[in-house]
Amino acid sequence: MALRAAIRNKSALPGLLSQLSCSSHGRVSTSSVFVAQQRKNSTTPKISVDFDQSTGVAVMRMKSPPVNSLSLDFLTEFCISVEKLEMDKSCRGLIITSSLPKVFSAGLDIMEMYGKSPERCGEFWKAVQEMWLKLYSSNMVTIAAINGSSPAGGCLMSITCDYRIMVDNPRYSIGLNETQLGIVAPFWFKDTMSNTVGHRTTEMALALGLLYNPTEALKIGLVDQIVPEDKLMATAEQTMAKWLAIPDHARQITKSMMRKPTLDKLVSKREADIQNFVGFITKDSIQKSLRVYLEMLKKRKA
Amino acid sequence: MALRAAIRNKSALPGLLSQLSCSSHGRVSTSSVFVAQQRKNSTTPKISVDFDQSTGVAVMRMKSPPVNSLSLDFLTEFCISVEKLEMDKSCRGLIITSSLPKVFSAGLDIMEMYGKSPERCGEFWKAVQEMWLKLYSSNMVTIAAINGSSPAGGCLMSITCDYRIMVDNPRYSIGLNETQLGIVAPFWFKDTMSNTVGHRTTEMALALGLLYNPTEALKIGLVDQIVPEDKLMATAEQTMAKWLAIPDHARQITKSMMRKPTLDKLVSKREADIQNFVGFITKDSIQKSLRVYLEMLKKRKA
Amino acid sequence: MALRAAIRNKSALPGLLSQLSCSSHGRVSTSSVFVAQQRKNSTTPKISVDFDQSTGVAVMRMKSPPVNSLSLDFLTEFCISVEKLEMDKSCRGLIITSSLPKVFSAGLDIMEMYGKSPERCGEFWKAVQEMWLKLYSSNMVTIAAINGSSPAGGCLMSITCDYRIMVDNPRYSIGLNETQLGIVAPFWFKDTMSNTVGHRTTEMALALGLLYNPTEALKIGLVDQIVPEDKLMATAEQTMAKWLAIPDHARQITKSMMRKPTLDKLVSKREADIQNFVGFITKDSIQKSLRVYLEMLKKRKA
Repeated sequence: MALRAAIRNKSALPGLLSQLSCSSHGRVSTSSVFVAQQRKNSTTPKISVDFDQSTGVAVMRMKSPPVNSLSLDFLTEFCISVEKLEMDKSCRGLIITSSLPKVFSAGLDIMEMYGKSPERCGEFWKAVQEMWLKLYSSNMVTIAAINGSSPAGGCLMSITCDYRIMVDNPRYSIGLNETQLGIVAPFWFKDTMSNTVGHRTTEMALALGLLYNPTEALKIGLVDQIVPEDKLMATAEQTMAKWLAIPDHARQITKSMMRKPTLDKLVSKREADIQNFVGFITKDSIQKSLRVYLEMLKKRKA
Repeated sequence: MALRAAIRNKSALPGLLSQLSCSSHGRVSTSSVFVAQQRKNSTTPKISVDFDQSTGVAVMRMKSPPVNSLSLDFLTEFCISVEKLEMDKSCRGLIITSSLPKVFSAGLDIMEMYGKSPERCGEFWKAVQEMWLKLYSSNMVTIAAINGSSPAGGCLMSITCDYRIMVDNPRYSIGLNETQLGIVAPFWFKDTMSNTVGHRTTEMALALGLLYNPTEALKIGLVDQIVPEDKLMATAEQTMAKWLAIPDHARQITKSMMRKPTLDKLVSKREADIQNFVGFITKDSIQKSLRVYLEMLKKRKA
Repeated sequence: MALRAAIRNKSALPGLLSQLSCSSHGRVSTSSVFVAQQRKNSTTPKISVDFDQSTGVAVMRMKSPPVNSLSLDFLTEFCISVEKLEMDKSCRGLIITSSLPKVFSAGLDIMEMYGKSPERCGEFWKAVQEMWLKLYSSNMVTIAAINGSSPAGGCLMSITCDYRIMVDNPRYSIGLNETQLGIVAPFWFKDTMSNTVGHRTTEMALALGLLYNPTEALKIGLVDQIVPEDKLMATAEQTMAKWLAIPDHARQITKSMMRKPTLDKLVSKREADIQNFVGFITKDSIQKSLRVYLEMLKKRKA
């Protein structure tokens, strides 16, 4: 099972975000992030949760420097936090945001895919699946308050929510840009995006690994609203209040009706999807391109 | 079988439309409707049909005061009328409109869902299914000339047609707003809407029970055209002429190809869908929220 | 097998394009095409291919006067050309365009459907399927550089590519206009269009046999970009460079993930689809309407 609280030490390493600067679509220079911040010791909580009993709304803040990479540890903590809230009947809504500057989440932690054993890779992938399954099927109203760049897995987390509000800063970007790195968004990333922006936009976005600035993301429907940075949380709370005005049972049945076919697809192919990921990511050619990429990052930081 | 001509007496009661005034999205004040009109005795025809042999086009006018609620009697008469036209080879097109002011149809008659036996609820639901099956698979060109508000079942009837023209009056609204009442649009309502405006717009519209004014409805594709009230029928007839310029057999095969998968889904699950509706609507909690709602309506009328 | 190089003589006959002038949506007058040009002897190649080893990009120019009709001969040559490029590992991208003025491709050659034996009709249809299967599943990046009208099968060829750039000339049009001729676009034409512009737009476009000018086509997403005629090839090459910047294996796996369900559907129903086409097209009523149409064309040319 992917949910494990065991904490592992590992060296500080950038997430997918840093690839933005080498992408023609990227708009975020992340060098300052790397200079200014060090990944904290992994025993520090990577997520903080504030639950307001009076409104029934929890705010989850991701705080895993430098870029909220989705490591196995991070995902484990994330899933446990969501599960706790899910089981608390008084919690009806969840707002997900970042407490780091400029980045929502940089997506899957490349270090979980590089030089790891097949078993470990499989465990990691199961945790990625778990994050998606928990969020996409959540009985809570889920709102992504996207206050920074959100490539790859960060974008997946966002589109898995019920509603997306993004800070209107042209230096932030969002998208499933996996192909730019030589890797591939799996079918359930694709399904989630296709359910959000339609087949054709998804086809082109995934083929080219496109990252969109907030205005572009709003135009194609990848986010639902863009707001100034200082209005983000207030807007998220107002939006949440609108969603919570609907009787829970009616909203939940409706949500399940919309999402069940997509959820069922991964549930029924979960093990095959893990095998597929492990087989792909442990290939020599893929490991080589990850190495080249990581070396490029090191040079840039130096 | 749902098609029955038996006429039943029942007390005058408002349909779903009246909920608009308690919805944050509603734009129609229906109080004048209730003051000005009394539901006529149910032996009066609820629908009038004018068939023009020279054009091959029938106009069906819904005239069941106060708000064209879709009761079992109404649906029975509606389905018989459509079936008659369908069997008349000289009838190639059908325009559906309302002869009541301000309202196209308020949707399913709540009184058919409140305090009724499971058998009766099942019979009612079968008639709702029948209306959808007949219209969505019709060989005729079907155009909804929407001259008033069209929430819930009224919206369903509209999106089941081939084309939708709505009067451009900001006080009219259209949408599947079931969740606002604590009930849920079933999968085939959802499929029909998704085939019209796409997955994501449907997901948000159903979750929040959104009602759209004509301009908004046009923007998301829920209606195809908006026109001034006095141009409605002329526009419907001109549009019909364009559709009838296409050879019937080619148009009909194309229509069937587009809609058959969605139709087949309900046909294969029809009985389960009835059981599901009956089980849901006869729950104590649902009956209670319908009672609360009806009492609120009575107070407002008093 | 549909791939045959055998050349057959046949009299010069116009393709589907000419129907544009009798369509309310058509915008191209093709009379000058018919006056000015004669169909060349069929031993002349109908397609020319220029492959630039330095860029890895091939340009395929259709040159089968008067209107690049998709005859069995044309399709055979087309499929052989695509297959050759596909097998050449150094060829990574394919740009398809026309060397005829004003027309990209007029679509399926009506003469292949009129007065032919069922066997011959079946062979022809298999070649149409083959063209679609090869293009829609191509490992190459495929770009349609649409420099003229592109109705019916010409539109199918375009939407089967990865990207579409159309010359911004309001006299050119594109669309699946089969119903205007009394015939029907089969399910895989429909699926391809639906994957491009969504369910509702496809439903209306196919029912009415709509042809769109470049501005309209851009608006609904039927083409991705419109450019002045003299910028077409340069734009296609720049776009190709962007697509080729993505690692081939990641792009190809992504493309296959997006398109495989649609491809599999035809592969599994291929024989039934041929029988369906042959049964339909050899009907007396359909043959009669094709004859009426062809006679109208002859008169117009005279």
